[in-house]
Amino acid sequence: MKSPLVITMGEPAGIAAEVTIKSWLAAKTEKLPCFYIIGDIEYYRDQSKLLGIDIKIIEISSPIEANQAFDHGLPVLPLKLPNKPIAGKLDKNNSNSVIKSIDMAVEHVQNLQAGAVITNPIQKSILYDVGFRHSGHTEYLGELAGKDISPVMMLACDNLRVVPITIHMSLAEAINSLCIDDIVKIAKITAMSLKDSFNIDNPKLAIAALNPHAGENGAMGDEEITIIKPAVDKLRALGIHITEPLPADTLFHMDARKKYDVILCMYHDQALIPLKTIDFFGGVNITLGLPFIRTSPDHGTALDIAGKGIACAKSMIIAIQQADFLSKSK
Amino acid sequence: MKSPLVITMGEPAGIAAEVTIKSWLAAKTEKLPCFYIIGDIEYYRDQSKLLGIDIKIIEISSPIEANQAFDHGLPVLPLKLPNKPIAGKLDKNNSNSVIKSIDMAVEHVQNLQAGAVITNPIQKSILYDVGFRHSGHTEYLGELAGKDISPVMMLACDNLRVVPITIHMSLAEAINSLCIDDIVKIAKITAMSLKDSFNIDNPKLAIAALNPHAGENGAMGDEEITIIKPAVDKLRALGIHITEPLPADTLFHMDARKKYDVILCMYHDQALIPLKTIDFFGGVNITLGLPFIRTSPDHGTALDIAGKGIACAKSMIIAIQQADFLSKSK
Repeated sequence: MKSPLVITMGEPAGIAAEVTIKSWLAAKTEKLPCFYIIGDIEYYRDQSKLLGIDIKIIEISSPIEANQAFDHGLPVLPLKLPNKPIAGKLDKNNSNSVIKSIDMAVEHVQNLQAGAVITNPIQKSILYDVGFRHSGHTEYLGELAGKDISPVMMLACDNLRVVPITIHMSLAEAINSLCIDDIVKIAKITAMSLKDSFNIDNPKLAIAALNPHAGENGAMGDEEITIIKPAVDKLRALGIHITEPLPADTLFHMDARKKYDVILCMYHDQALIPLKTIDFFGGVNITLGLPFIRTSPDHGTALDIAGKGIACAKSMIIAIQQADFLSKSK
Repeated sequence: MKSPLVITMGEPAGIAAEVTIKSWLAAKTEKLPCFYIIGDIEYYRDQSKLLGIDIKIIEISSPIEANQAFDHGLPVLPLKLPNKPIAGKLDKNNSNSVIKSIDMAVEHVQNLQAGAVITNPIQKSILYDVGFRHSGHTEYLGELAGKDISPVMMLACDNLRVVPITIHMSLAEAINSLCIDDIVKIAKITAMSLKDSFNIDNPKLAIAALNPHAGENGAMGDEEITIIKPAVDKLRALGIHITEPLPADTLFHMDARKKYDVILCMYHDQALIPLKTIDFFGGVNITLGLPFIRTSPDHGTALDIAGKGIACAKSMIIAIQQADFLSKSK
């Protein structure tokens, strides 16, 4: 029997429960595979009442039980929260359970009880209070996955996949930390994952320049000449199909993005601006380079709209679909 | 009688003549007003032959004559080129005529012989050879317009107007040169122009943050706190409707961009990536803060496709329409 997918609890004061419950409701129309969530049973019952959603919360005692339960309601593998969550109010007493939910999900996917893990958004600031010390989900999953793992964040929407080379740092720091080795390492993992997990033979990579007009031969910045082009040369020597550093503003319109399987971006907003401009609600985050499959919606905890019933589950639904596709292609 | 619009010659080795000729052909279907171009009569005749376009090139001796000529062909006010242009090959011997075409167009619009000026793209590198010393068209027009003129570049497409605060410099330099005074000055000119030229009462300005997630309260860069927010405070004190610095990746999707009349961006690609992602061929450049109206297509000289007949005139057509709209609303 196929292993179900596992979803982590995420920040309980945010919209995680809502998008998960809404995804279960959409399971038939969206052709979602069986999944279960690791979290607090009472919390999901309270949330469904609060949101006015008629759904059965089914307690399961092992992942495999999700297969039978899923047709009748949302399968939940219990993980108690010390305090009852309040929408929009962070509570550090619940932080250890949020982390524990990730740990358990990774354990399940590593011992093949689950086919893939989909993570709900977390609020890092409140996790730092209990000793969490990673800059994000992706880095934490890398550590849980074992030594020598370099996870790579890829974001995808319709007709576009982007991989930022630098991520959560100031723009000035992103420029300063850009280096040949990181570009080569990340591009290699990206190319390999597109081949192995996405079944794309000889994937076509585009690489965005850092400076306007790709620096105009050094007239407006030289990182294209000193960093990006040397990285491109190394990648080509490895047989990877990759463009010259191209002006970033010409890469993302429909005709351009159709030409490439992925676009490597030099900084967070260079990747996220086009992705969220094209599809604000349907972007999905896929971690490459892990020994298991992990996807997540690309939105945050959305504390400001938590408990109001207005959260959009599109990104979570696509994250589940994408995890399903990737676990089948493995 | 209404003054015709004037179009400059632009770089004769590029696609300027082609998009101008194609715009004239589209004049009826696109409801374009009367316009004339300042350039070399023989060159336009050669171009129309080369492109296989059956169009009458009509020599006029003053702008007003364009009104009668326009129904029958493309009115050209003669400005001789020393050398016959070759598609794709820059020739510095023609540079002075390229500049002269701009000078004459500005003269016509300033003495009201023309209602607005639309500039064709120039190749700055070849103009520098004859002593041109401006970083772009916009700055040169500012100088021609007179003292104390601070021209501001606005780019527009369907449902989106963007104004970059820094423009043609490396990304590192853009970060370093960002300052409160420039943001305030540019935002003031933008707000005033939207009111006066676009007839928007109390225009709504959005301002993009520099850093990812708007810096997360200083955790990823502090320019939001030290530069952008103080500028916002000053602008609000002047009665200008402007947002807090917002994460740039959340500003450009359809629902977001509908909320604002313009989005101020901190650097070139932050403005140009969303604009060209949304509408690669239809973007238009509008210069604010000049004592006359100037628009231009937002593409370059496109030397690589010159003379092949494949250039898209959409941006030029919209630039003409936009100039017409603005000259009527004056």
